[in-house]
Amino acid sequence: MEDVKFNLKNSYFSSENPVLQVALDYGYLWEAEKTARIVHEEMRGLEYICEAGTPLIKNEGLKKVIPSLRNIVGYNTKIVADLKTMDTGAFEVELAYNAGADIVSIAGVSEKETIFSALEKAREYNVSLMIDTIGVENIRGRLEWIINKIKRHNLILEYHIPIDKQTSMQDFSLIKEIYDESGIIIAAAGGLDEHIIPRVVSYGAKICVVGGAITHPKNRTSRQALREIKKKIYL
Amino acid sequence: MEDVKFNLKNSYFSSENPVLQVALDYGYLWEAEKTARIVHEEMRGLEYICEAGTPLIKNEGLKKVIPSLRNIVGYNTKIVADLKTMDTGAFEVELAYNAGADIVSIAGVSEKETIFSALEKAREYNVSLMIDTIGVENIRGRLEWIINKIKRHNLILEYHIPIDKQTSMQDFSLIKEIYDESGIIIAAAGGLDEHIIPRVVSYGAKICVVGGAITHPKNRTSRQALREIKKKIYL
Repeated sequence: MEDVKFNLKNSYFSSENPVLQVALDYGYLWEAEKTARIVHEEMRGLEYICEAGTPLIKNEGLKKVIPSLRNIVGYNTKIVADLKTMDTGAFEVELAYNAGADIVSIAGVSEKETIFSALEKAREYNVSLMIDTIGVENIRGRLEWIINKIKRHNLILEYHIPIDKQTSMQDFSLIKEIYDESGIIIAAAGGLDEHIIPRVVSYGAKICVVGGAITHPKNRTSRQALREIKKKIYL
Repeated sequence: MEDVKFNLKNSYFSSENPVLQVALDYGYLWEAEKTARIVHEEMRGLEYICEAGTPLIKNEGLKKVIPSLRNIVGYNTKIVADLKTMDTGAFEVELAYNAGADIVSIAGVSEKETIFSALEKAREYNVSLMIDTIGVENIRGRLEWIINKIKRHNLILEYHIPIDKQTSMQDFSLIKEIYDESGIIIAAAGGLDEHIIPRVVSYGAKICVVGGAITHPKNRTSRQALREIKKKIYL
């Protein structure tokens, strides 16, 4: 697999250090905007990614959500449209691109034709594609096919433990195996907080996706949570 | 499986005859509204279902799409929010319910916890759930678990061949096997037109989901296409 290894230096991110992705997993835009402002203030001078969550997009619409978030985070921060696309891959990438997203997520479990058409369109528009592993039974098998197919496109694997399935014992160890084998950029998602982050980073995750710990914090504010989390990613 | 058989007469639909579901698979609301008006006019006096397609919802948002379509179709026509939910099942059902949808689709390939939480919420709100088979490798295995779990809830199985995978040789014969075994309400989707419809109806499909043949018709208008399709469903 050597010849298809991703070269991070020439790739999407300006550094090899891990970055934070804040998943704005709300249903309403005003909630997302409020947290996005806090996050952007706290993250001044640091590279991070702003995620428009799936329910937020479904409820409020890409057309409204992405430009509103862009107003807050500017053009130096990438915005992910977490579409988890299941069908009409090219069409959904196009809609997200038109709305102004930099990265689009697609369901890794969708048909190969869907992933392939999304990849083609993403390449055309210079949008990055994030392959979400929810529901994928054989992640390595799927990954191998994708890497063989697309070679060096800006591709991110989102190793994702669904919110509905999160427990205190999430197992992220497959990240290490996949990273060691493929060198692909891996985003770890699923109940991450300051306690879990050091582990996924040590496994090779380059993007730490944090939702609930920041958006629905317990016994602290979003800002306080973010400050603790930040310390574990930006050393 | 006898004791969990669905009784169509006491169930979602007022008749045992098949009905049309028009999938408004556009990216923009103005396109969807235009076709919805034509469909509603042509379908006067007939029971049918209006579907807000996934890309339409993602681009324009449930909050805007469902009330706009309701304005056109009124309260005697059911509206499906085709969310293809992959995570946070209960939350997405709630958002769709708040927007005014009658039926919500969920990805059959999502985690059992996601399907179960969506079902619980759907039952609470008296919303019907449509389980989409995209990406499901073992449809009968999955279906058995769901039927055992939920018994007589308003459940619809959407046997779905993704748009990205459609060819002229789509195989819908599994519908017959599933229907004969379970008696569940089956919606057939994937490139349906007036030529394919008689076959899926003979297999037992109670809902014929038609998108492209009406929304992107070739060499005829949407109205002309709908008239041909109508003849094959409402005999």
